[in-house]
Amino acid sequence: MAAANNFFSIVAGVGAGTGRSVAIKFAKTYPVVLLARNPTNYESIVQEIKSSGGHAIGISTDVASESSVKNAFAEIQKEFGGKKLAAAVYNVGGGFVRKPFLELSLAEYQAGYEANGKGFFLFAQATLPLLLDAVSSSPHPPSLIITGATASLRGSATMSSFASGKFALRATGQSLAREFGPKGIHVAHVIIDGVIDIPRTKSYNVNGGVEDGKINSDAIADTYWHLHTQPRSHFTQELDCRPYVEKF
Amino acid sequence: MAAANNFFSIVAGVGAGTGRSVAIKFAKTYPVVLLARNPTNYESIVQEIKSSGGHAIGISTDVASESSVKNAFAEIQKEFGGKKLAAAVYNVGGGFVRKPFLELSLAEYQAGYEANGKGFFLFAQATLPLLLDAVSSSPHPPSLIITGATASLRGSATMSSFASGKFALRATGQSLAREFGPKGIHVAHVIIDGVIDIPRTKSYNVNGGVEDGKINSDAIADTYWHLHTQPRSHFTQELDCRPYVEKF
Amino acid sequence: MAAANNFFSIVAGVGAGTGRSVAIKFAKTYPVVLLARNPTNYESIVQEIKSSGGHAIGISTDVASESSVKNAFAEIQKEFGGKKLAAAVYNVGGGFVRKPFLELSLAEYQAGYEANGKGFFLFAQATLPLLLDAVSSSPHPPSLIITGATASLRGSATMSSFASGKFALRATGQSLAREFGPKGIHVAHVIIDGVIDIPRTKSYNVNGGVEDGKINSDAIADTYWHLHTQPRSHFTQELDCRPYVEKF
Amino acid sequence: MAAANNFFSIVAGVGAGTGRSVAIKFAKTYPVVLLARNPTNYESIVQEIKSSGGHAIGISTDVASESSVKNAFAEIQKEFGGKKLAAAVYNVGGGFVRKPFLELSLAEYQAGYEANGKGFFLFAQATLPLLLDAVSSSPHPPSLIITGATASLRGSATMSSFASGKFALRATGQSLAREFGPKGIHVAHVIIDGVIDIPRTKSYNVNGGVEDGKINSDAIADTYWHLHTQPRSHFTQELDCRPYVEKF
Repeated sequence: MAAANNFFSIVAGVGAGTGRSVAIKFAKTYPVVLLARNPTNYESIVQEIKSSGGHAIGISTDVASESSVKNAFAEIQKEFGGKKLAAAVYNVGGGFVRKPFLELSLAEYQAGYEANGKGFFLFAQATLPLLLDAVSSSPHPPSLIITGATASLRGSATMSSFASGKFALRATGQSLAREFGPKGIHVAHVIIDGVIDIPRTKSYNVNGGVEDGKINSDAIADTYWHLHTQPRSHFTQELDCRPYVEKF
Repeated sequence: MAAANNFFSIVAGVGAGTGRSVAIKFAKTYPVVLLARNPTNYESIVQEIKSSGGHAIGISTDVASESSVKNAFAEIQKEFGGKKLAAAVYNVGGGFVRKPFLELSLAEYQAGYEANGKGFFLFAQATLPLLLDAVSSSPHPPSLIITGATASLRGSATMSSFASGKFALRATGQSLAREFGPKGIHVAHVIIDGVIDIPRTKSYNVNGGVEDGKINSDAIADTYWHLHTQPRSHFTQELDCRPYVEKF
Repeated sequence: MAAANNFFSIVAGVGAGTGRSVAIKFAKTYPVVLLARNPTNYESIVQEIKSSGGHAIGISTDVASESSVKNAFAEIQKEFGGKKLAAAVYNVGGGFVRKPFLELSLAEYQAGYEANGKGFFLFAQATLPLLLDAVSSSPHPPSLIITGATASLRGSATMSSFASGKFALRATGQSLAREFGPKGIHVAHVIIDGVIDIPRTKSYNVNGGVEDGKINSDAIADTYWHLHTQPRSHFTQELDCRPYVEKF
Repeated sequence: MAAANNFFSIVAGVGAGTGRSVAIKFAKTYPVVLLARNPTNYESIVQEIKSSGGHAIGISTDVASESSVKNAFAEIQKEFGGKKLAAAVYNVGGGFVRKPFLELSLAEYQAGYEANGKGFFLFAQATLPLLLDAVSSSPHPPSLIITGATASLRGSATMSSFASGKFALRATGQSLAREFGPKGIHVAHVIIDGVIDIPRTKSYNVNGGVEDGKINSDAIADTYWHLHTQPRSHFTQELDCRPYVEKF
């Protein structure tokens, strides 16, 4: 796809699961920028994409820090200034704490919002102008795709930190969908309701340990790509996904 | 795809929009059975599929009639007895009435449920045994995909007939997802929130008449096919879709 | 309250729990009509109200039968023709079936809708004209209060009959709230999420058998009365209730 | 009510509307502490309560400041150390901004969370231990009642700051309801969907200017009191309220 050469994509929050799969999927069409605080989280993915003939760079970024995000986008501008942004994916999970409420410190409570409220605000403010700039030429409507969780819809006991961050993220995503949809940007929110099958979760006894009882993150990436390719007459704003055996 | 030759699909509720597009999309992989009360609703689609090298039959069926559904599935058994059912789509819109509540007749009120409650019950009872039978061999998890509407989530003024039917349909779909998901069947519910772009709606002044202000039903079909191809580790149960300019 | 002597109330669906408590509560202010299919369900309540100095009558009614509802309201007209209707409560639970979907008969599936869709339609069509007639004079905004359940929001596995009826009821209630609210009628929907403490449920081992682990139906009645007394500047459309130990 | 003399209540966020009405309502039974940043927001209410024979104090508090909240509760301990806390109401609206997303500063975006996320966290951590201490003796289950808004359920265009704060508040409230309900605390969340009738909104042309087209905050106070008096077998976790003519 020649046209796609003039475009690139960004994935914030990469590690072993969704971020990696999404980056690899989008890299088949667009160069991709990987953002993560810790370079070890993106280095091997960048290598993997390059060795498959794709183009990727990683930038160490703390999405909850204004200056860090500013620096990252300055670097992006330097690297991809001649290209337009076709897709931005916000997949930051950080800040997960599970604790009795009265044992939470303020910092622990706020960690959920830092990652999913403030961090997303900074990311959206940096990417939306670039996405708007791509509306008239992008092969698919420029997309801002957001990773939610079970906790986006439900404040479970002892989960107030994570849930308040994910609720705030969903609120902001809805608001952006309503403001930027009519301008041609596709803002979508995906509720991941289940454990993702990554090395760290191998030992988790989920859904009785049955085969496919955890989510294959490549399937998440296929869904994100499907969202990206939807035409503007048919934007999905929200969808859920879970393993076939997951209770809900 | 050789394996797919042993499978077929069914679309209930075909006309000019979603049903037609979904049938044409699924016919690229599976033979397809089209159900509609009025043969004029499927005849041209059957021709279109055949002339593209696909295989399709239409059966005149009233989904809200036990005997009619029974006859239809007897005919399906005769025609496709040697194949397994990979996908069943329930896309029955019928029964739309918009009237002040005190002017509704009982029959008008019940029309929503006849089409989307009773009709879906009969369809689901006929298709689920066939879908179960395909679990172990189907190229993708056998799928039961349901068409919802704005009224699946919201009972608007003067819309009690349609909304009560669509709410009942969603309730039943959720119940089936929870019962049959663990058996390997993918039950998905799609909330179509907007006017579909078909000949009948050409003159509707929707969203200020802007381009792409109505939903392209081929995009709906792409999403239904995407749902069908999701692996069992990642089932989407519900998603919405609407034109980029739609208020929501 | 002298003015209240010119008003009356109706409770459809009385038995040992919510219906009985609501009837007794409302009878402190208004004469009350009790509707139930089986007279043994209301006879003792009528006695109880009368012996406390209240006024009550019971009418054997099948709310899902047009002619039965017609007869009941003719009798109500005869008995209370000179009074206006201040409150109508729809508390019909009937039609509960829990069964694997493929074992449900059509009649069993439809039982949920018969009780909560069709039955409520007939009740609402009979009561709304009377409630409208009371708007200008009623001490509180004339109220149509609806009893929902956990299954109003969630289609659980093997619960499609009950859930489809309760979803349809909620849809219709929302539609009426939007149509008749601006005319001065208060339509409220209450989601009862828990087991009610009645003789039939005494042996149920709910929430580990702790004290107050089942809902006291007198508390439900207090909430219904609170809803009835809300002024039109502050209508609650929906609320939930559950025991303090209930999982949700 | 003699017993009630051993209890007190706290209302955070008082001004001309809900906070004032709730404080006056609860002051009929319990001494009440009023928290607001600006003393002019509570001084006249304290006077009003005192002149009706009630007991009230105001404490200038910035709920989003750890040290300010700490100081306030030290003062509360000094004043009411011998009494137990029967009810705590979180009614902080602050941080309302309506602006195109790309014009928001980080501080403006965060203002919503500061008021409704961080502020509520600090308030809940200070009040929950006191409420727990009252469980065994309080005349009604000790209550933590939270004021939500339309934006608790919906992220509207240009409202991301307020909506993200109100979503975070709702998430945290749900989490606390699930953790502290079983310990006997009633956590309730009220969605105020409409404009409140206060001096500042007199000139707002709401709902065509019809009578009662704005919410009477005394009615809100009645509902908060009703919530407080619910027994533990019947806790309402969430309810909405709006004027009879409000579109929703």
